[in-house]
Amino acid sequence: MNIKITGTGSYIPETIEKNEDFYEHEFLNTDGSVINSPNEVIVEKFKAITGINERRYVTPDLNTSDIAFFAAEKAIENAQINKEDLDYIIVAHNYGDIKHNTEQSDTVPSIASRVKHLLKIQNSKCVGYDLLFGCPGWIEGVIQANAFIKSGIAKKCLVIGAETLSRIIDKHDRDSMIYSDGAGAVVIENTNESGGIIAHETATFTLNEAHFIYFGETNNHDIDEKRRYIKMYGRKIYEFALNNVPLAMKSCLEKSGIDIKDVKKILIHQANEKMDEAIVKRFYKLHSLDMPENIMPMTIGKLGNSSVATIPTLYDMILKGDMQNQKISKGDIVIFASVGAGMNINAIVYKH
Amino acid sequence: MNIKITGTGSYIPETIEKNEDFYEHEFLNTDGSVINSPNEVIVEKFKAITGINERRYVTPDLNTSDIAFFAAEKAIENAQINKEDLDYIIVAHNYGDIKHNTEQSDTVPSIASRVKHLLKIQNSKCVGYDLLFGCPGWIEGVIQANAFIKSGIAKKCLVIGAETLSRIIDKHDRDSMIYSDGAGAVVIENTNESGGIIAHETATFTLNEAHFIYFGETNNHDIDEKRRYIKMYGRKIYEFALNNVPLAMKSCLEKSGIDIKDVKKILIHQANEKMDEAIVKRFYKLHSLDMPENIMPMTIGKLGNSSVATIPTLYDMILKGDMQNQKISKGDIVIFASVGAGMNINAIVYKH
Repeated sequence: MNIKITGTGSYIPETIEKNEDFYEHEFLNTDGSVINSPNEVIVEKFKAITGINERRYVTPDLNTSDIAFFAAEKAIENAQINKEDLDYIIVAHNYGDIKHNTEQSDTVPSIASRVKHLLKIQNSKCVGYDLLFGCPGWIEGVIQANAFIKSGIAKKCLVIGAETLSRIIDKHDRDSMIYSDGAGAVVIENTNESGGIIAHETATFTLNEAHFIYFGETNNHDIDEKRRYIKMYGRKIYEFALNNVPLAMKSCLEKSGIDIKDVKKILIHQANEKMDEAIVKRFYKLHSLDMPENIMPMTIGKLGNSSVATIPTLYDMILKGDMQNQKISKGDIVIFASVGAGMNINAIVYKH
Repeated sequence: MNIKITGTGSYIPETIEKNEDFYEHEFLNTDGSVINSPNEVIVEKFKAITGINERRYVTPDLNTSDIAFFAAEKAIENAQINKEDLDYIIVAHNYGDIKHNTEQSDTVPSIASRVKHLLKIQNSKCVGYDLLFGCPGWIEGVIQANAFIKSGIAKKCLVIGAETLSRIIDKHDRDSMIYSDGAGAVVIENTNESGGIIAHETATFTLNEAHFIYFGETNNHDIDEKRRYIKMYGRKIYEFALNNVPLAMKSCLEKSGIDIKDVKKILIHQANEKMDEAIVKRFYKLHSLDMPENIMPMTIGKLGNSSVATIPTLYDMILKGDMQNQKISKGDIVIFASVGAGMNINAIVYKH
């Protein structure tokens, strides 16, 4: 028995927020002080490091559960399964549904229950739950689905990553330019086909790292409010990721028994282009190799960091032919890898 | 190999909120109209149905992750394991950390990451994640831990249920009197001892039921705010639970192969004493039996509905000798059962 992804789907939100759209923002330092550069310079610097030109935001009428549903519908259709045969709906997210112009996260009922409701699934044996695991949540959902299938309690699982980070950003924080909205989904099944999940690896670092990504107040100290926003210590995360992600990927590859030269694609979480390049370069350096060209398909330029949605969206886009000069063929070895709040890191070695 | 609970712990918050403490509240109907009864009568009626005399609230300095940590510490000590040997920390909750006098749920990093941080666990292979599954979240966490152990990716898991519902209640809603705070935790391991998890059952009903428990505005329509609170359609939940929980318990018991006469205790989620009695009576009626005396230990009178925390707290209290006339001995068959937001239902047949 092999455990494989048999269908993919994604939803890319309609509103394009370009870098220039931030020119009028009042960016401040975390201590509230004014940044001594014009916004054009701040934005250019930002682009040079992260590779982000534009990002996507959902329209005001949509929430995380809606776009999770859109991606799920497509994945089910693509897998050509009967939705009533699903044993699990696992939704990875971090902030739940945050309605436009409100600040509270709505997580009851779970996003999985909302998606199941929207899918009009009748089978009560289809269990829906939400998984909070930072940006690596979608990969972790795949790892959990894999465990459920292996243990015999499931045959078919829908694993979704969906987030609307546009609803939780501080407009006075330069880092707000990183975040984006999106949803990606896959159907995972046990199958007699060759390939599938060969190995996986997960780590949670909390001793010093737990609060590298956190919930904090606005940089604008003139605003008297208790409201909090997604915040991060970018420099610390960069160093942490560079030190630990390549090692986790290496450990996962060793478990898989696959030769690094057989790896065709690395689908890595995208929060910062320079960081991703440094991680993958170091991964190859650990094997005394140079990073091959075209190994790491990137969507960050146009899609920003959509958290849990990034990797399933990227995978779906490649398979559907929506990524120039990128394809994954039957039998290709792919590494999925992510890092994010927790701080969590995970990786899967997968044979397409 | 058997999969057993080898340690338990719980934290019962310090602040006792008595029914009389609600006499000064301004209760309103959902349409904003005044309820034509004095509060003393409302509270008496409430008590007659739910069985709740008092409930517990955390002190202003504490959040869900803190009390989850308190319970976790005790469970680890009770299990006599090295905390560094834990493979998973699974935290079931629904609203994350909501700081005193604020309204936002803080779930990044996950509550599991915060607990792991507070436990000072160094081992990065110990994976922490949060599970959102309504009140049945703790039982579902146990079912997931069971799957991880069975599939070979874990040996020892810490499963916590923790919630501070006092931070999400509408003071103008009579239902606010139901909710309570609390935390319970267990360590689950594969072991050569006899007993453990014999069978489990889970169902998610969403077609018509998804929004029986939801996030809604205050009953006081004079307050102009977007803030939302935990809300429920009590009558619908009552009927739903009565129709579906006994069937799920029966199905679970059938899977286990255990005779109903060998069931020693039923540890059921406690949101309403009358509802619980009706559920368990119907469960026995499905087997053409009367409900045995003392089969269903209750904490609701003094602890209210602490959501995911209720069952692990109850189990811990019985094992520690804190429940009068209630004990569970080696070899006893126990059923854990829960129902809540989603709507989710689950049950475990367990041999102590």
